[in-house]
Amino acid sequence: MSLTGEQETVQAVDFYEVLKGRRSVRKYDPDFKLSDEEIKELLQTAVTAPSGSNMQPWRFIVITDKELKQQLLPIAFNQEQIVAASAVIAVLVDLQAYTEASRIYAKAIEAGYMDEATAEKLVGNMSKFYGNLAPDKALQNALIDGGLVSQQLMLAARAKGLDTVPMAGYNVQQFRELMGVSERYANVMLIALGKAAQPGHPTVRLDVDDVTSWNGFSR
Amino acid sequence: MSLTGEQETVQAVDFYEVLKGRRSVRKYDPDFKLSDEEIKELLQTAVTAPSGSNMQPWRFIVITDKELKQQLLPIAFNQEQIVAASAVIAVLVDLQAYTEASRIYAKAIEAGYMDEATAEKLVGNMSKFYGNLAPDKALQNALIDGGLVSQQLMLAARAKGLDTVPMAGYNVQQFRELMGVSERYANVMLIALGKAAQPGHPTVRLDVDDVTSWNGFSR
Repeated sequence: MSLTGEQETVQAVDFYEVLKGRRSVRKYDPDFKLSDEEIKELLQTAVTAPSGSNMQPWRFIVITDKELKQQLLPIAFNQEQIVAASAVIAVLVDLQAYTEASRIYAKAIEAGYMDEATAEKLVGNMSKFYGNLAPDKALQNALIDGGLVSQQLMLAARAKGLDTVPMAGYNVQQFRELMGVSERYANVMLIALGKAAQPGHPTVRLDVDDVTSWNGFSR
Repeated sequence: MSLTGEQETVQAVDFYEVLKGRRSVRKYDPDFKLSDEEIKELLQTAVTAPSGSNMQPWRFIVITDKELKQQLLPIAFNQEQIVAASAVIAVLVDLQAYTEASRIYAKAIEAGYMDEATAEKLVGNMSKFYGNLAPDKALQNALIDGGLVSQQLMLAARAKGLDTVPMAGYNVQQFRELMGVSERYANVMLIALGKAAQPGHPTVRLDVDDVTSWNGFSR
């Protein structure tokens, strides 16, 4: 709502423009700051992504504190976007996300999407299935879900005219020590988020024909 | 272009409508068929997703053949979308995607984004880094990239009014035997793609506050 009491026009954001406009940006305007509310809004959009059994294993650490970013800088091999971007969002996954099943189903019951008997049965199923999953398989599943939500987060940022860069190049162990992340959680990636000071470089892609086979696998 | 020679209006597709409209759909119109070209167009949109070092490890098997879908059906625990959906897209990742680096950089040189000396240096860097990566770490990295492209693929489908469901529940080993997938490639997920016969169920999400911590990790 505007201060004049007039209704603001919600500008439609073209889906394809968002996808085309998303590039990995490494140079950020250090004076541009996002509010916590703006960041939360992006995460809200991101978490509508799907996940295995809707267990939503994603967990986020939002890093906006200037001093903490300085501590993170060498851990991320001095990539300047760590300090110049408005925020760094660490995407983690909970390897025991299924233990939150009852909380998720309680919300579904509240929304009228599920009855209590179904919820109870599903909690049992989740516990049995995920509780017996080999740890490496549980990690692999969770990382895929982490990728799903990360892509939606980067697109959500672009839809707001913001830029991001996904980062795998950092010392994961040192990051975890700095933030106090326990064994229960695995790192997916860091995502720098802010306003570009320089556009990202254009990049190329392999032809779809080079990465696709039809009705069988031919490599 | 229309047959009358008039320019067609490209309808803008609202980003948020696409995200809101994406739900996991399990009931498909079995009479609706996508052309190979339409499926390729969706993959083209999907692969603009980012990936680690832009190595694009994603590989796709598009399954549209009726008989092959019947063979896949029991492997996917008889989930009817396997046969009712227009296509099933298996998302795989190449665990040695870095060996395609020179091909990717050749395209970048051709596009004028890179010079040959830089490309040569980068090929060496990729080979050194990825060639020395522990196999489990290589798999984990690739699965994250597989998640990124999968999310963009599902959104690309929705932007065309199509529906999808990501599937992790299938016998991966039997799938690999049926399709002839070698050890070099790992499975990410199956995605059924088609026209919904029934809308997907609405689902709930944990509150952002429940999955987010600020400037440190507190769980």
